[in-house]
Amino acid sequence: MTRLVYISGELVPEHEARISIFDSAIMLGDTMTESTRTFRHVPFKLDEHIERLYQSLKLTRIDPQMSPAEMKRVTLEVFEANRPNYAPHEDAWIVHNISRGLSVAGADPTKQLGAATVMIFTQPMNLLPWVDFYSKGCHGVTPMSRMVPSQSLDPRIKNRSRLAYTLAEMEAKLVDPQAQSVILDLDGHVAENKGGNIFCVTKGVLRTPSTVNCLAGVSRATALELAKGLGIPTEETSLLPYDLATADEMFFTSTPYCIMPATKFNGLPVGDGQVGPVTKRLLGAWSELVGLDIVAQAEAQRG
Amino acid sequence: MTRLVYISGELVPEHEARISIFDSAIMLGDTMTESTRTFRHVPFKLDEHIERLYQSLKLTRIDPQMSPAEMKRVTLEVFEANRPNYAPHEDAWIVHNISRGLSVAGADPTKQLGAATVMIFTQPMNLLPWVDFYSKGCHGVTPMSRMVPSQSLDPRIKNRSRLAYTLAEMEAKLVDPQAQSVILDLDGHVAENKGGNIFCVTKGVLRTPSTVNCLAGVSRATALELAKGLGIPTEETSLLPYDLATADEMFFTSTPYCIMPATKFNGLPVGDGQVGPVTKRLLGAWSELVGLDIVAQAEAQRG
Amino acid sequence: MTRLVYISGELVPEHEARISIFDSAIMLGDTMTESTRTFRHVPFKLDEHIERLYQSLKLTRIDPQMSPAEMKRVTLEVFEANRPNYAPHEDAWIVHNISRGLSVAGADPTKQLGAATVMIFTQPMNLLPWVDFYSKGCHGVTPMSRMVPSQSLDPRIKNRSRLAYTLAEMEAKLVDPQAQSVILDLDGHVAENKGGNIFCVTKGVLRTPSTVNCLAGVSRATALELAKGLGIPTEETSLLPYDLATADEMFFTSTPYCIMPATKFNGLPVGDGQVGPVTKRLLGAWSELVGLDIVAQAEAQRG
Amino acid sequence: MTRLVYISGELVPEHEARISIFDSAIMLGDTMTESTRTFRHVPFKLDEHIERLYQSLKLTRIDPQMSPAEMKRVTLEVFEANRPNYAPHEDAWIVHNISRGLSVAGADPTKQLGAATVMIFTQPMNLLPWVDFYSKGCHGVTPMSRMVPSQSLDPRIKNRSRLAYTLAEMEAKLVDPQAQSVILDLDGHVAENKGGNIFCVTKGVLRTPSTVNCLAGVSRATALELAKGLGIPTEETSLLPYDLATADEMFFTSTPYCIMPATKFNGLPVGDGQVGPVTKRLLGAWSELVGLDIVAQAEAQRG
Amino acid sequence: MTRLVYISGELVPEHEARISIFDSAIMLGDTMTESTRTFRHVPFKLDEHIERLYQSLKLTRIDPQMSPAEMKRVTLEVFEANRPNYAPHEDAWIVHNISRGLSVAGADPTKQLGAATVMIFTQPMNLLPWVDFYSKGCHGVTPMSRMVPSQSLDPRIKNRSRLAYTLAEMEAKLVDPQAQSVILDLDGHVAENKGGNIFCVTKGVLRTPSTVNCLAGVSRATALELAKGLGIPTEETSLLPYDLATADEMFFTSTPYCIMPATKFNGLPVGDGQVGPVTKRLLGAWSELVGLDIVAQAEAQRG
Amino acid sequence: MTRLVYISGELVPEHEARISIFDSAIMLGDTMTESTRTFRHVPFKLDEHIERLYQSLKLTRIDPQMSPAEMKRVTLEVFEANRPNYAPHEDAWIVHNISRGLSVAGADPTKQLGAATVMIFTQPMNLLPWVDFYSKGCHGVTPMSRMVPSQSLDPRIKNRSRLAYTLAEMEAKLVDPQAQSVILDLDGHVAENKGGNIFCVTKGVLRTPSTVNCLAGVSRATALELAKGLGIPTEETSLLPYDLATADEMFFTSTPYCIMPATKFNGLPVGDGQVGPVTKRLLGAWSELVGLDIVAQAEAQRG
Repeated sequence: MTRLVYISGELVPEHEARISIFDSAIMLGDTMTESTRTFRHVPFKLDEHIERLYQSLKLTRIDPQMSPAEMKRVTLEVFEANRPNYAPHEDAWIVHNISRGLSVAGADPTKQLGAATVMIFTQPMNLLPWVDFYSKGCHGVTPMSRMVPSQSLDPRIKNRSRLAYTLAEMEAKLVDPQAQSVILDLDGHVAENKGGNIFCVTKGVLRTPSTVNCLAGVSRATALELAKGLGIPTEETSLLPYDLATADEMFFTSTPYCIMPATKFNGLPVGDGQVGPVTKRLLGAWSELVGLDIVAQAEAQRG
Repeated sequence: MTRLVYISGELVPEHEARISIFDSAIMLGDTMTESTRTFRHVPFKLDEHIERLYQSLKLTRIDPQMSPAEMKRVTLEVFEANRPNYAPHEDAWIVHNISRGLSVAGADPTKQLGAATVMIFTQPMNLLPWVDFYSKGCHGVTPMSRMVPSQSLDPRIKNRSRLAYTLAEMEAKLVDPQAQSVILDLDGHVAENKGGNIFCVTKGVLRTPSTVNCLAGVSRATALELAKGLGIPTEETSLLPYDLATADEMFFTSTPYCIMPATKFNGLPVGDGQVGPVTKRLLGAWSELVGLDIVAQAEAQRG
Repeated sequence: MTRLVYISGELVPEHEARISIFDSAIMLGDTMTESTRTFRHVPFKLDEHIERLYQSLKLTRIDPQMSPAEMKRVTLEVFEANRPNYAPHEDAWIVHNISRGLSVAGADPTKQLGAATVMIFTQPMNLLPWVDFYSKGCHGVTPMSRMVPSQSLDPRIKNRSRLAYTLAEMEAKLVDPQAQSVILDLDGHVAENKGGNIFCVTKGVLRTPSTVNCLAGVSRATALELAKGLGIPTEETSLLPYDLATADEMFFTSTPYCIMPATKFNGLPVGDGQVGPVTKRLLGAWSELVGLDIVAQAEAQRG
Repeated sequence: MTRLVYISGELVPEHEARISIFDSAIMLGDTMTESTRTFRHVPFKLDEHIERLYQSLKLTRIDPQMSPAEMKRVTLEVFEANRPNYAPHEDAWIVHNISRGLSVAGADPTKQLGAATVMIFTQPMNLLPWVDFYSKGCHGVTPMSRMVPSQSLDPRIKNRSRLAYTLAEMEAKLVDPQAQSVILDLDGHVAENKGGNIFCVTKGVLRTPSTVNCLAGVSRATALELAKGLGIPTEETSLLPYDLATADEMFFTSTPYCIMPATKFNGLPVGDGQVGPVTKRLLGAWSELVGLDIVAQAEAQRG
Repeated sequence: MTRLVYISGELVPEHEARISIFDSAIMLGDTMTESTRTFRHVPFKLDEHIERLYQSLKLTRIDPQMSPAEMKRVTLEVFEANRPNYAPHEDAWIVHNISRGLSVAGADPTKQLGAATVMIFTQPMNLLPWVDFYSKGCHGVTPMSRMVPSQSLDPRIKNRSRLAYTLAEMEAKLVDPQAQSVILDLDGHVAENKGGNIFCVTKGVLRTPSTVNCLAGVSRATALELAKGLGIPTEETSLLPYDLATADEMFFTSTPYCIMPATKFNGLPVGDGQVGPVTKRLLGAWSELVGLDIVAQAEAQRG
Repeated sequence: MTRLVYISGELVPEHEARISIFDSAIMLGDTMTESTRTFRHVPFKLDEHIERLYQSLKLTRIDPQMSPAEMKRVTLEVFEANRPNYAPHEDAWIVHNISRGLSVAGADPTKQLGAATVMIFTQPMNLLPWVDFYSKGCHGVTPMSRMVPSQSLDPRIKNRSRLAYTLAEMEAKLVDPQAQSVILDLDGHVAENKGGNIFCVTKGVLRTPSTVNCLAGVSRATALELAKGLGIPTEETSLLPYDLATADEMFFTSTPYCIMPATKFNGLPVGDGQVGPVTKRLLGAWSELVGLDIVAQAEAQRG
């Protein structure tokens, strides 16, 4: 069965899911977004994702013409409509992309001229790019370019004008084609990965940048909550590359992979170069929370 | 006759011009762009626009799978195909939008997986939003937010990840719904407008920021060349809001309107509050250069 | 009865209270200052104000030629002398302005040549400019200019060289003539209002910038203490415009109005656009602390 | 004969020249200012000073309720009225201080409530503090604090909110009680002295900071013009402390002393530690321009 | 008996302890370092010093060709070999200097070509430069230059490329030849002394900068631990010059002197200008911890 | 014959050229330096190198106890003494390293306690690391870390505290083991290479950063002079990575190799990826100036 995509009120087959090239999504990167994943076919923290989506819409003055409750209802309907595509052991990624709608040449781009373009789709979680990292750890690399500062565009407005992130990721991959970016802010402090947050463990304390320079990630919040539940002390603070290079453990958090261990940073081993015990405990606690073995599910994709 | 749009090798009617919602144009704002206008049905400085487009593509490592010469040829063909839509006294805007093509969830976003999505379309120049400004001047207003700095994303890479510009423009319009943004860089120096460059005239000297913090606009270059031709001294330098507020004249340059006079800046009159003589001479010289009266053409739209 | 003003040892009627135009107060803005208000004719936290005044004097090397104890004694005498002017239900503002004294052309401006000029006066609290905001909330707006950074002049030195604040306030009022400024520091973090501190409430936590970029306001400290007494968690941290725009409540603190609710920020509603419950509880607790209904007193001025 | 001071339309004896302690000059440092000196009883570049004064008034939205022409006329009248006080070989300093007028507690400080307070006075040029420096050179010292940046308050708005300058000068004087401050901007570039501009001569080129971070001094412009007349190449650029420490010559410019040679910088000799030839030529040319020997006039004060 | 120095495996008499002028220590300042002191002939926190040394070596990719355990063993042997030089009441400074070894012209300076140069030596603690400060307090002064920022070189990498610190110390000594530098970071926040950390006590709270802009000093950590043991609240935070100038007490920490009281800051008295009670308690607790009277030992050198 | 090294007045064989490990060169990286090369056994621009050396010594208050003329004389003597080691077709590198001399624990590091340590040595020009780059061009790569800013340590003080440069070069070599660093300043502007300056050619104009953020290289000055001689327009300005990536040609300048072409920048070809015509003309002109074929001499080393 083909997957169905929701576009502004209609369900259409994925291969027919198209929008006008005059949409502000294309003309201006003017799209607010969220990505939610399911565990055992249950969307994880959907309320938090929808709350954050509406904050992004508020700050950018896009009117989705739906209440958060309607958005949630429609989201669940879209997932239900597609659910037959996902085997019981598989999970899905549910993506919201909401643009300001049609853009007219010469018109004021800050005014919404008609209906917003609401796109909701599901996709199978493709975890293959990361699956080996659960056991071996990935390589974090800092790009030469720096995060767009909050005074230019707050990273907590989750949006699709992502060229700066894509270029930073390219720069990191000059060092190692498998590298995951560790983007610094203008002061040289660790900010975020192109699509995730960054953590380290030093002398038993779990540390991550405060949200003054990065996305307030839902997965980031989950990792912090799990740590608190396990009695692991946590700290939201300024981190520098020195902190990552001398940490005992390091990992990324993001919706698709939850926690991705990193065992190398700018060519140096992190800790003893192995995935560390705190990282494993957090991954284990997350698996318990959602009732499935996150690593096993990913490794199953390796076939 | 309906306008025809070029999408990756095919001409389709404008209302059928759609792309997949999974295109990196939508998923990542990963689109390089140029906007060229015609004067008397001749594209203005098309070579310069295409050269800059290929620099943007180079820097972002997008392969358009066409040489600059082919791009030019296709562009002219697209315009020719649409030319019957434009009356002799009308002109067109020719837009290039080139994205990295399909984006696949989980895949490395920095890799181009297949063909780039090449979109080329023409549209009638809608000059109504600016037409009154030729005689009365517009109101330049500085937003609270600041330009994305070059070390995060060089503004000379002309792209469609424009959310920061859109939000800055919104902020300027809090002061005056007709305001045109005068975006400052992180040091508080004048950078650029959301889609144009900024000039002032002080004691006979035409001044504009150097391209260290703004787009190297084709219209900006034209204004500087025309000034040189008229014997007006020019200076590319750091400008501060103080410089605009105390200038004798001020204007914006951009492809659609060429030169847009500004007579008010942050609520203060610029000079005597009238469109100034240097501005008028430059507009006149531009009209001569292209063989039509730019202001008259715009005013004709007011019908 | 006419109000009496203390100038360097003498009590003079308010309309005769003048100083030489060669005083450093005028020639150099070289005046340290405090503003204290009374509640039920009792100066509020006068000791704290005088302690801060002497810190400002120390840092600027002005010798007031009076000990803090004498300053307190004189202050109370000035208020007593003027007390008949204030009805029982009215309160007063007590202002200290202390300059380095006479300034002589060509002389070293950093040397105090003779006696400091000590000005102490009382005035009726004019709350009319803010009275409507207690029920409707005010509109916080961020100016384009930025706070003078601490490395140029620490805002904790409370002084009368206030041009930067006045211009910032003007900029905010370009958006809305009733706007109250929310001045950002050079990093784009929320700093302070032209004469007050800024708070928000997010998910039950009362948050305000740390004093690294703003005045250590006595009213700010009072609000934090009251919150602690009410069991409301507090946080002194970096705040960004995003934090205010997505907060549930927002308010300003300052000596005259104590707490001024804000219900709009840069054109967006704060929370549901109504004065919030935490703000009201804090105002209530403050009223209890000082033994009068702060809002009622202000509203009584509306006559 | 006692000197007469102009205050808002009246001439009063200097010792009676007083303003209300509620004036915004005192309450807010809200005063725009110019200092002009005479040479042989002729005000030097009075038009330039008045033009700059009106730019400061424009930027701060103070209405002096006089046209520039009236301001000039009144200024000359004030000087004429005081002229008998100045012997033929003596000259005077003419100072304009214009505040927004009365400030009312609680009222919007950005609104001018009534007449501006226009103060114009003359004083004998007291050159004693600098007279030795003409022959021996002074000691330039960089304070620890940094210039207020242009994005907080443009130094070209010449105003009396000068606490940051006074404190910087104090810091310089910690090194040497005779030191003259060389204030750096936030990037560590040379900006200005508390009341003057800074120049150096390196391999025959006269160099001074561009006005991006300092006052556009009338004396600064005079020095540049004189250099051009003498065929000395000039450069307006970024200067760093290294440039001053390795320069062949260094000097300050300001209205009272015109050019003040500096022979020491942060404890190091500048060049050979003597007043240099380019400095002397410029002083000589200035004397010629104004028809009196500037140094001799100053030295005559030494009595 | 002459002191013996360890150089890359050999013990040589101090006066013969020389290395090639082609060593990267000299050619590139490419030396990682630690300084440990003994108390009663026991090296204090040697493990912490060696751990930090190996972090510095890791970050700079210098291979000392010895494990931390071997380094510790050798260090203790070097001290034992020299112990007869130290009377029972005297203590020693043990210094590690480890360079990347020989540097060859034209070769890649980032590659270690052969053995690292491992230098370990002991010296008697010369406390005379500081001994008076235990009772009178020293004078902290902020230089004009600013700390090398972490994004250029993290100060936690303890190294011998110290020119910036030496120049900053020189600048502080322009104010007072006995001054101790209080270096600010680029934001004007207190960072560190050329060889120590900086603390103040304000209203009973012990405050020091977080390690985001300074060395994570072993003595700094000791002072914080001792304070916790004594029930003194501590805070690691951003400090500004204002905080030091208005503090009740101030001191420096470093390996040789442990705690050096400061009673003057930029010419202003700190607190009442006397060494304060919290400082004394911490010094007392440190003496107890190490079993000798630190101040008495230093004062005995004066004899 | 063994090479002889000058150390503070004596000539010693190279393998015996050692200094005390207590020298400030090792203890503090407190060494000023110059590297001069010979062409046909004639030191190139020795006067300029010695002048700059004495500026570095002045700024750091090191007294070499020799006049510049003596330094030159000794330098030439050292070279003469070693000249037999260099075949007629070979050239030498002449290095000056001058430290503040012995450093005593606890003593004030800013005071020179005795004689400076003056080291002068010659070495054969080892051009093998660069020889292939003359024909193929090298790969310029920007490190993640940023230049030490001028306000921390002016790069024009040529010194041996070079750890920040070494680490930056290491970072560049993470991308390509043959990479040459293109270090950016804190604003993300191109500054310098670890030991050279950076140029590009764009549309016929030779461009290089002004010395506001980099060493005033003698080779840099030579390249600019040669360009002027050839009628090539030059520009000293702010350059960004975008400028290098879109330039037609790029090269480095430094004493050993004079001009090193770069044909790749951050993984992108510069121009057509070949060594460009302007670069070749400049290398040719330099060869003419010094009377030998610079490239041929280097290639002869390949043997």
